[in-house]
Amino acid sequence: MITGHTQLFGIIANPVAQVRTPQVLNTIFEQRGLDAILVPMQVDTEALPKAFEAFRGFNNMGGFIVTVPHKTIALHLCDEVSVAAQNIGAVNTIRREENGRLVGDMFDGRGFVRGLAAEGWGPGGRHVLLVGAGGAAAAIGYALAEAGVRSLTIANRTRAKAENLAARIGEFFPAVRVVAGDTNPQGFDMIINSTSLGMRAGDELPFPADLLKSGQLVAEIIMKPERTKIMDIAAERGCHVHEGFHMLTHQAELMVNYMLGQEYGV
Amino acid sequence: MITGHTQLFGIIANPVAQVRTPQVLNTIFEQRGLDAILVPMQVDTEALPKAFEAFRGFNNMGGFIVTVPHKTIALHLCDEVSVAAQNIGAVNTIRREENGRLVGDMFDGRGFVRGLAAEGWGPGGRHVLLVGAGGAAAAIGYALAEAGVRSLTIANRTRAKAENLAARIGEFFPAVRVVAGDTNPQGFDMIINSTSLGMRAGDELPFPADLLKSGQLVAEIIMKPERTKIMDIAAERGCHVHEGFHMLTHQAELMVNYMLGQEYGV
Repeated sequence: MITGHTQLFGIIANPVAQVRTPQVLNTIFEQRGLDAILVPMQVDTEALPKAFEAFRGFNNMGGFIVTVPHKTIALHLCDEVSVAAQNIGAVNTIRREENGRLVGDMFDGRGFVRGLAAEGWGPGGRHVLLVGAGGAAAAIGYALAEAGVRSLTIANRTRAKAENLAARIGEFFPAVRVVAGDTNPQGFDMIINSTSLGMRAGDELPFPADLLKSGQLVAEIIMKPERTKIMDIAAERGCHVHEGFHMLTHQAELMVNYMLGQEYGV
Repeated sequence: MITGHTQLFGIIANPVAQVRTPQVLNTIFEQRGLDAILVPMQVDTEALPKAFEAFRGFNNMGGFIVTVPHKTIALHLCDEVSVAAQNIGAVNTIRREENGRLVGDMFDGRGFVRGLAAEGWGPGGRHVLLVGAGGAAAAIGYALAEAGVRSLTIANRTRAKAENLAARIGEFFPAVRVVAGDTNPQGFDMIINSTSLGMRAGDELPFPADLLKSGQLVAEIIMKPERTKIMDIAAERGCHVHEGFHMLTHQAELMVNYMLGQEYGV
């Protein structure tokens, strides 16, 4: 039951109808016995700064989530962000402190890594191919390096973007071998699709599926559809498959802890 | 269950913990089978313009309620208000139109009058004493005149305020006798306390209770406590008493209809 005492949280997106964050985070609030509610807010890019400005004055707001297409711009609208978020170039979770300051961090990558670990595929010591070099790839790449992968190869249609991201991550984690490469999945323990290829029925495959071998892990971050074409092919070829929803479900606790100002257990 | 499809509504107040609007309006949403949620937003006066500015860009927001201390300022932050709200000098309900325009109206007075009518005390043809000449009195006074009272006497500690309000209402409803007077309740069918006297335990009485007579109606707009001291005395003296919560419960349907852009049945 929502009353005047209920603490307010939001998810800002455009469009917003497809987000699953309200269901996932409100379930956590309920499980923890918190008088808190997270509601959807459909805000376009132009109006985003005004939402941040207003939220500084929302004294019963604990924080908010931002998602597509706002993660990059949101970084610049916060009063403070983590070093990781700064390096990734994006935030997706913002805590509102009592004085109104908005403090942001990025949990996509950490959520993804926790999801892998929960399924028995902790990435430590593995050779990983990351397909894509956009915002999601940056977050996942940093988190994989942070988790101690043996090597990280980034493949992107525009190779310069892959080289740039590899250099940025490598500089931050000098112990990890981070390079740009092509989309050939041979020889990798895990192949992660961080592109949007697979969201629409007619999309081409993000990497050559006919080169997959039994025993490799193929991971997605796409949540709709739950099973992409590349996952179906991978499963047919004897690969393990890892659905996109794990990234959200496993970062949800981190997001809640962060917004509540608790240790968030990364 | 809140999802990305849920339409957003708010109640802005400062403080906000005491408001009952979320419980009342969310119950109406549920009864009507609407996928909509109203949440509390604690915003101080200084930050109010930023909230309005942000809400113009909240594309899944249907509207919001404003209450103490924002009803007067909110009038000036809307893009459009009703003639009644303009005359009362306050709004408490704002509809967000699809293009982001914020359109406001004031339902306190109409809610109060509907509450009276629902309890068998329709004010048409009655002689009414209205104690207080602030924002609440303005809303109630206009609605009483609109409902066709025989006479309306406004009593206020600062008599000039009562005279001013009486003149404003009288100009708008020339058929109704509207005058400034003192707080003597003798000879009136209804006495309405629109001041805040009675909210705190040590408050003086808003009018001389020892002059009340059996059969008169004494009405409150104070919601906490549910029974004020003047109501207890009035009941002891054989008067009918009318609790403050009727004003909220009977304007709730009007507020919802208005925010949904439906005929709101005033």
